Amino acid sequence: MKSQSVNIGIAGLGTVGIGVIKILNENNALLTEKTGKNFQIKAVSAKNRNKLREIDLSEIAWIDNPLDLAKRDDIDIIVEVIGGSNDPSKTLVEKALQNGKHVVTANKALLAMHGHSLALIAEKSQVALRFEAAVAGGIPIIKTLTEGLSSNSIQRIAGVMNGTCNYILTRMETTGNSYQKIFNEAKSLGFVEADPQLDVGGIDAAQKLAILSSISFQSVIDFQNVEIDGIEKISSFDIENAKAMGYRIKLIGISQRTKNGIFQEVQPCLVPESSVISKLEGGTNMVIVDSDFIGRTSLSGPGAGQGPTASAIVSDIMDVVKGTVSPVFGTPAKFLKKLKKETKGVERCFYLRLSLVDKPGALAKVATVLGENKISIDRMRQKAHHGKVAPILIVTHKTTLKSVKIAVGAINDLSVCLEPPVSIKIEEI
Amino acid sequence: MKSQSVNIGIAGLGTVGIGVIKILNENNALLTEKTGKNFQIKAVSAKNRNKLREIDLSEIAWIDNPLDLAKRDDIDIIVEVIGGSNDPSKTLVEKALQNGKHVVTANKALLAMHGHSLALIAEKSQVALRFEAAVAGGIPIIKTLTEGLSSNSIQRIAGVMNGTCNYILTRMETTGNSYQKIFNEAKSLGFVEADPQLDVGGIDAAQKLAILSSISFQSVIDFQNVEIDGIEKISSFDIENAKAMGYRIKLIGISQRTKNGIFQEVQPCLVPESSVISKLEGGTNMVIVDSDFIGRTSLSGPGAGQGPTASAIVSDIMDVVKGTVSPVFGTPAKFLKKLKKETKGVERCFYLRLSLVDKPGALAKVATVLGENKISIDRMRQKAHHGKVAPILIVTHKTTLKSVKIAVGAINDLSVCLEPPVSIKIEEI
Repeated sequence: MKSQSVNIGIAGLGTVGIGVIKILNENNALLTEKTGKNFQIKAVSAKNRNKLREIDLSEIAWIDNPLDLAKRDDIDIIVEVIGGSNDPSKTLVEKALQNGKHVVTANKALLAMHGHSLALIAEKSQVALRFEAAVAGGIPIIKTLTEGLSSNSIQRIAGVMNGTCNYILTRMETTGNSYQKIFNEAKSLGFVEADPQLDVGGIDAAQKLAILSSISFQSVIDFQNVEIDGIEKISSFDIENAKAMGYRIKLIGISQRTKNGIFQEVQPCLVPESSVISKLEGGTNMVIVDSDFIGRTSLSGPGAGQGPTASAIVSDIMDVVKGTVSPVFGTPAKFLKKLKKETKGVERCFYLRLSLVDKPGALAKVATVLGENKISIDRMRQKAHHGKVAPILIVTHKTTLKSVKIAVGAINDLSVCLEPPVSIKIEEI
Repeated sequence: MKSQSVNIGIAGLGTVGIGVIKILNENNALLTEKTGKNFQIKAVSAKNRNKLREIDLSEIAWIDNPLDLAKRDDIDIIVEVIGGSNDPSKTLVEKALQNGKHVVTANKALLAMHGHSLALIAEKSQVALRFEAAVAGGIPIIKTLTEGLSSNSIQRIAGVMNGTCNYILTRMETTGNSYQKIFNEAKSLGFVEADPQLDVGGIDAAQKLAILSSISFQSVIDFQNVEIDGIEKISSFDIENAKAMGYRIKLIGISQRTKNGIFQEVQPCLVPESSVISKLEGGTNMVIVDSDFIGRTSLSGPGAGQGPTASAIVSDIMDVVKGTVSPVFGTPAKFLKKLKKETKGVERCFYLRLSLVDKPGALAKVATVLGENKISIDRMRQKAHHGKVAPILIVTHKTTLKSVKIAVGAINDLSVCLEPPVSIKIEEI
């Protein structure tokens, strides 16, 4: 970028879009001092022009159709913070890149679904497509993987990447209240997305994990093959039992290269109480990277919110201004490989909670199903109970997620099983 | 860098230099895939040509005088891993930069002493001077501060940045053994620098802190004004007392912007047992960054060792290859400000351990000195003792390091004081 001015167009004026304008205003002197450039917002676009906003937009051109931003000669960099994997975001980003404009986005859904094709366009047009804000805004994990650790071969990434789930699980633990009660609390505080499945169903974390996997394993992004389970089935009883065994429950995204391909899983997990990841409170995210020459690098910070997300966007803009155009996912998109899904997974122990009819032979039937699926039992406890439901807790020896899913399905079909069984992976992070 | 070849010269073939060659060999395909370039080591220089090395150097030119590397036309990037703030490192880096060669170094001492003048040369010559390896190799903290958080105004950095001290303090705690015994153990394991003061005297950590301060506060690097205390005076008795109060002892580097300037301190500190920094074991480093729009970002990983340090160097080389030449300390060196030392410091509570003569009036004399220095006492305990020495433990209310140093000096001069008093800052990180 040779001109002294950096001309920015912003598509989307929600919390993050407004945050970007705030940083560009409040830290303007800092940005200019560091880069020698003038940062100017030339145009903005959002659904509703008349909405009351905390920022004065009177000096900035208002564009009704965001796609028009991609055509404007007075814009060098487009900030896409509309969100969603479909239009207008998708076409806007495509057109902008095709027209030689750099794009900075916070849109994890768009990248998870179309990241590879967008990277091909960006690299063909020799413009930047940057997305630090899409994964854990307050943690520079995209930069760490694409640049900071770029000389390493990465073996595994794992982390807590959804603040809402972490908030809910933490609050369930501290209050002892039910999932539903704490979910409602989080919702009333504005912590839950319009479609709650994105958060509590694990989809948001899975989109982030798929992005990190692509960079880490030099692979074509493969969101479809992330095994996803949300946190809806976790009860305060599970949290209490986990605690009694020295564990806490976290929604963990984990992705690992194996000799057959990669496996990517977003699952509630029991993690040892002594691990740093188990201590994460509320909206804090953490990503742990295991690589060949370094060993383990861990990063933590706020995962979302106006400041952290907007900060990641503006830091990306500053990188674009320096003029480097790097491969979008760290390796040129045309060299990214399609890696197979590792269907076998990596073997781990599992926690199972079953609700069985309290009569002779019930447990034998369960044991038979487990045996048929080659799952052996490490520990088992029948909790004290009243009435006809016997809560059974089992910790298995190491087995695969696939075997557990089949066994849990079969147990659920047994007449002695009164409620869908709950299975939680034990991750010795 | 337009050519397809990246031609590298390495000055220094100690652990780190050999590590760089290993990564360039073992991850060669990865590096080429990511950058499209061929990485070649053209020349090396070290003190002793005949030393037995685990790497075959027969294909690489051997240069007796490292300064000659700076003159060679067949070298684009010089890796300086000789170490030390004086010659030949200093002149080599200067000459290389003047001759338009990029320099990647792990030399914290050189940067701490001459970082500003070297940055001016590099920026005048429009070449890169990079040093991720100089601070906590396994943590991309230089990149995080210069780029990842570049849109933020940074308020404070704090961290554990010397693995040797952390190893010694951790082992003293787990074994209950004396400082001297564990120091000898660390030395026999090769964990201590030839000049132990660099490690246990806090100098190494102070050099790193000074580098991070310059980037964070857009200031001319100012190693001279780091307040440094080492860990030599810490006894297992202190560690035990800290534990009883809910703290652990760590050597913490902390740097903060105040309205008068900056203060930079490397000091043993009591940190709350519940804090993540208190859990760091052995050689792991951690840096915590507080910034305006993000809040808190924490990074941890191995601080030293062949793999992590060499990995940081090769990742820096990969950045250089992309062709970006950024300001060395994140802001052009000519715009870095000389910030005053904040002499008042930030007020904190302190732990004091005194060895007094066990007779009436001894404590009154100490209390008088503390009062004269406006230090008030929060808690005090006299430990059970045998013989004539009464060990007194005091936790003060908030005061400054400066006041404590004056008071400790005065107490040491009292006839009732039998051993030099020990003072340790309490850092509620």
